[in-house]
Amino acid sequence: MRTYLECIPCFFKQGIESAKILGVDRKIQKRIVDEISRVIPSFPLASSPPEMEKIIHDIIKRNLKKDVPYEKLKKKSNRVALSIYGKLKEKVKDSKDSLLTALELSIAGNIIDYGANHTVQPEKEVFRILKEENSMLNKRLFHYTDFKRRVKHSNLILLIGDNAGEIVFDRLLIEEIKTLYPAKRLVYAVREEPVINDVTIEDALFVEIDKTADIVSSGSDIPGTLLSQCDKNFIDLFNSADLIMSKGQGNFETLSHEPAPAFFLLTVKCPVVGSTLGAGIGDVILTTSKRKNRPGQN
Amino acid sequence: MRTYLECIPCFFKQGIESAKILGVDRKIQKRIVDEISRVIPSFPLASSPPEMEKIIHDIIKRNLKKDVPYEKLKKKSNRVALSIYGKLKEKVKDSKDSLLTALELSIAGNIIDYGANHTVQPEKEVFRILKEENSMLNKRLFHYTDFKRRVKHSNLILLIGDNAGEIVFDRLLIEEIKTLYPAKRLVYAVREEPVINDVTIEDALFVEIDKTADIVSSGSDIPGTLLSQCDKNFIDLFNSADLIMSKGQGNFETLSHEPAPAFFLLTVKCPVVGSTLGAGIGDVILTTSKRKNRPGQN
Repeated sequence: MRTYLECIPCFFKQGIESAKILGVDRKIQKRIVDEISRVIPSFPLASSPPEMEKIIHDIIKRNLKKDVPYEKLKKKSNRVALSIYGKLKEKVKDSKDSLLTALELSIAGNIIDYGANHTVQPEKEVFRILKEENSMLNKRLFHYTDFKRRVKHSNLILLIGDNAGEIVFDRLLIEEIKTLYPAKRLVYAVREEPVINDVTIEDALFVEIDKTADIVSSGSDIPGTLLSQCDKNFIDLFNSADLIMSKGQGNFETLSHEPAPAFFLLTVKCPVVGSTLGAGIGDVILTTSKRKNRPGQN
Repeated sequence: MRTYLECIPCFFKQGIESAKILGVDRKIQKRIVDEISRVIPSFPLASSPPEMEKIIHDIIKRNLKKDVPYEKLKKKSNRVALSIYGKLKEKVKDSKDSLLTALELSIAGNIIDYGANHTVQPEKEVFRILKEENSMLNKRLFHYTDFKRRVKHSNLILLIGDNAGEIVFDRLLIEEIKTLYPAKRLVYAVREEPVINDVTIEDALFVEIDKTADIVSSGSDIPGTLLSQCDKNFIDLFNSADLIMSKGQGNFETLSHEPAPAFFLLTVKCPVVGSTLGAGIGDVILTTSKRKNRPGQN
């Protein structure tokens, strides 16, 4: 997905809010805003929003002149989500359609995102999700029957993760698929470097996804997955997977144009992504890529 | 009121939305955004937001290379508001406290503002106001008893207008004061040049405010009233008025620090003004300036 002019005010918002979360004083916040301003005229709108987000967070890091304490935020998100893992697991087990429940929880978990939703409090969000994960489901953009069939008939399933905290909800989904289909190979992809709360190998190990799936880094250091910037190993996996589950807005923004057997699992957090999909803010989405097949495939 | 960093995303939003209202194509919208970006680093935050808004709209005008068709929008707002003038007048007449009703309507009319509220449809807004003008009244920031007393004891009353459309609601307030106190001198101040839908002499004549009040231009060509940029004639009036009624956010942002016997009549349209006042978006406010008295006065 390209960048729309409407994304630009939001880039500044993200810069200011992230700087605030990091406790940066107003003078440095202003310097960050000025540096973002200087980049805007040369940022090509043909690029995806996560590429600009990477630039913004590089500006923030440069101005902080010290390591960015995102690790703390990520650990907090993971711990809070893990603390209700048992309850989530029960909920999945007790449900009529355990795959559907695990899937819904995994998508709803996408709300835990400091990038797009600056004031998120993980504890509150997670408990809200436990209560209402179903209510924002966009029925027109929730292709569960197709998804279920695809899971059944796929051997290699690749899940591309998005955020810390949310990763615990992904673990549930992966575990559920493994319980239903023990023979399938499951791979969980993480980012090489976090921009804010992006999942990395450390998070995947911390929440013990490695017990159920192989873990691989995509090589990406933007809050999305731009194949042209990814590791060869990951690209090979992407190209050979029978089913790709892409989590979150950043992955949608960078992968939705790719010809691949991908499902996008996300909650809509911004009006631009919403209007691209024909959905509202907060909607829980499970939709396929526009171009489902690779060149040469039917 | 100075500019906050949080205003900066909104400056871009305003630029994009105004360009859209004017039917500017995406390429020129991008050029406008780039030019706003180039101005940001040198814009002092000590300046008020309306000063930046003036810069933004100058950029838009320069890129349009033709006269900006704001006149059409303004005329439409005025006509729509005038079409319900009779109903509004009846509402004032039939009410228990006619001054209060006229005042509430005048403040509620401030919602008609293409600047801060980009998608406003005057017809809808005006009819909504007719139904609900009371519901968003911020009781803690609605000093009606003080205001009423001040009206009674003032000889020279200056109302500083804000937007087209809204001016019809101001006319009701002015007429009501004149009906209650025929001996008072009433002056209605307009802007010298419109930025978007700012009231000018043409609007005041079109809605016939001149039948009840003297009309004067403040000399301002920003969407607010910065005394340092105003005409001497207006400054004299400002300094000698017994009561100043300042309409809207732009006038609040540029006049709230002035030592003057001013009441600010506005609906809150942005979170920054809201947090300055301790009010929420949409709140209907009637509050005094922090510094009520001029130097030397008690």
